[in-house]
Parts: sequence; C-alpha cells; structure tokens
Amino acid sequence: MNERMDRETLLARVRAQMHDKRYQHTLGVAETARQLAIRFGADPEKAELAGFLHDYCKCWSIDKMHDILVRHDLPQELLQGEKELWHAFAGAIVIQTEIGVTDPEILQAVRYHTTGRVGMTLLEKVVCVADYIEPNRQYPGVEQIRDLAQKDLDTALSVALGGTIQFLIEKQKTVFPLTLMAYNDLISRRGREGGFNG
Amino acid sequence: MNERMDRETLLARVRAQMHDKRYQHTLGVAETARQLAIRFGADPEKAELAGFLHDYCKCWSIDKMHDILVRHDLPQELLQGEKELWHAFAGAIVIQTEIGVTDPEILQAVRYHTTGRVGMTLLEKVVCVADYIEPNRQYPGVEQIRDLAQKDLDTALSVALGGTIQFLIEKQKTVFPLTLMAYNDLISRRGREGGFNG
Repeated sequence: MNERMDRETLLARVRAQMHDKRYQHTLGVAETARQLAIRFGADPEKAELAGFLHDYCKCWSIDKMHDILVRHDLPQELLQGEKELWHAFAGAIVIQTEIGVTDPEILQAVRYHTTGRVGMTLLEKVVCVADYIEPNRQYPGVEQIRDLAQKDLDTALSVALGGTIQFLIEKQKTVFPLTLMAYNDLISRRGREGGFNG
Repeated sequence: MNERMDRETLLARVRAQMHDKRYQHTLGVAETARQLAIRFGADPEKAELAGFLHDYCKCWSIDKMHDILVRHDLPQELLQGEKELWHAFAGAIVIQTEIGVTDPEILQAVRYHTTGRVGMTLLEKVVCVADYIEPNRQYPGVEQIRDLAQKDLDTALSVALGGTIQFLIEKQKTVFPLTLMAYNDLISRRGREGGFNG
C-alpha cells in the first residue's frame, strides 16, 4: 500500500466501490484472513490488506472491468469466459493504480482469490479460504470448511474448490479450468492414492 | 477390422483378454452403442465394433500397458497420471496390431471412451454414453442418464461426465483434465447461459 495512505483512507476507498453487504463481506474476509495467517504462518498484515482489497472491483460495471482487462492485454480465454472472474483479475490491476499496492504477493492473492491456480502461495490460500468461510458466508457445507480451516488449510481449500466445482456441475454450468487444476494440485500434493478418473 | 476376421473370431479374441464380467459388460456396451448409433444417426456397425473393442486391454497388467504406451511415445502426463486411463489409450494402439482396425473413427472412440475430450465425434459420444448406461451398469444416477440418452445424447454425456467429476471430488481424488474440458465443451456448445465459476 502506498505509505501515505492510512487505514481509514483505505477503508473509505474500498467502501466507496461497493454496496454495504459486499463491504461487510470484505471486512469479514480481511479479519478471517488475518486469523488464518496467524494460524498457518503467513503475514497477518498482508493477509488483512489482501482481504480488504480482494473484491475492490466486484461491484463495478462489466464495461468498466472489460476496459481494464483489454487495456492490460489479459488472455482472450478470460475475456471470453465467465464475467464473474473478471473482478479478481481487474482488481489486481486497479489496486496498483488506485491504492498503490506493489507487493506481488498481495496482487497474486487478489488475482487468484476466486479461481485458485496451480502452485498457490500460502497467502493466496489464506485469502481464498477466508473468502469461503468469513462469518457472513452461508451455504451448505460451509461449516465443514470452517472446521477444516482450524487445522488443515490445504484440505479446507481442496474441499472448498471441489465444492464449487460440484455446485457448478450440479447446475450444468462450465467450470473454470484453473479451479480444477488448483484442486488437482492440492490433492496431488497431499500424496493420497488415486489420481484422475477411471 | 481386418476383413478376414469374422465376428466369431473377433469375439473369441476379445473374450480371451478379459474375465467374464468384463466380457458381459463389453457385449452390453456394443449392443447399447449400436442402439444409440441408430437413434442418433451414427454408423451402427462402427459403434458396435468400437463397443466390442473399447475395453480390449482393460484386464491387462499395468506393466504390459505401460510398455505399449512408452513404445508409442504417449504423453508423460498420461504415464504419470491415473493408470485407470491407460487401457483406453493402449487399447487404441493394440486393436490396430492385434485386430487390424484401421478406421480412425473407431480408434478415436476407443481412445477417448473413458476421458472424453474437446470436440468429440458422434461415434465417440455414442460409445462413451454406452459405456455409462449399458444394462449391467448400476450406480446412483444411471437411470437419469439412461432416460436422457433416449433423446439427448449431449446432455446424457455432460451429466455422465459431470457425475464422474463430482464422484471423484466427493472422494477427494484428482480429476483428469480432459474430462473437465470435455464437460465444459458440451456445456458451452449447448449455449446455455453461465460459463466458468464465480
């Protein structure tokens, strides 16, 4: 974060981008990410800041996000895919220019908070899991993920991403490949028996 | 198929590769594939033959399949992944040399009958769905797929592949990327709203 920007200014900026419910979710993610960071040995300050900023663009118009993505030459796959993902990639761009964030760890945590990716850093996992379990979240299975996040961040994340994939298939929607790759990566690293389907 | 090989010889060859339960499944897939081909406008002879041959290597030893895959320079991803997939890729090689099949449509249908792939041909879909619904198959959800296969092959297949992905995630196993890509491809072509996850 730009060193001249204090916490109050930052939060006022964030609040100005979104409606109240999204802002409450944002505060929940920041606090949960801070706690997870302490629990699993990530940097709590970075985790909290990434939490504050992760949905910076979430309530922006599609056109505004599209302009940003096109200007920064993001992959066609992303531009042709689900617009729900745009806010994460646009967010990682915008918080550099509007908030002055330069820390690549924080930028990556914002960029991949929705999809995940192969080889996620600890901070990325913390923010992604916090987004799934912050106190305002309510969906079938959230308690299981909250329980797992008490002691095993990777399993919490693989169950969370897996749940997203299952949910999308239940609705016969497409699944972003990055998310499946992130899920497979977590499972493979756990070294359990059984890969791929037969 | 080699023109000198009659049906009786072919079936004797197939039967010699597998135990009885697998052979009964094989006959079920061949008959179901033939019916689906008639229903959806594929070639019934090719569908039946691909059904007879789809699991030709299924009961072979891992070592024997591995030798074939290595000799034919198949991708490392396949060799490092789940061995359950090997029989399909090895099968598409072996039925050329041992049975004399040269028809690329049949070879592809055998090669991708387990994973699916992006841009599946009608014959590939027919064999893949037949493998899911032949009369000996019993698993939760099979009746729904059988019903769908009465009138909508693509939806039957997307539900079937989606069910496999969901099942693997339920067991926290990895999912072969080809299968997700095949699923996404079917959903995208259906032109429904909503791609990728948010």
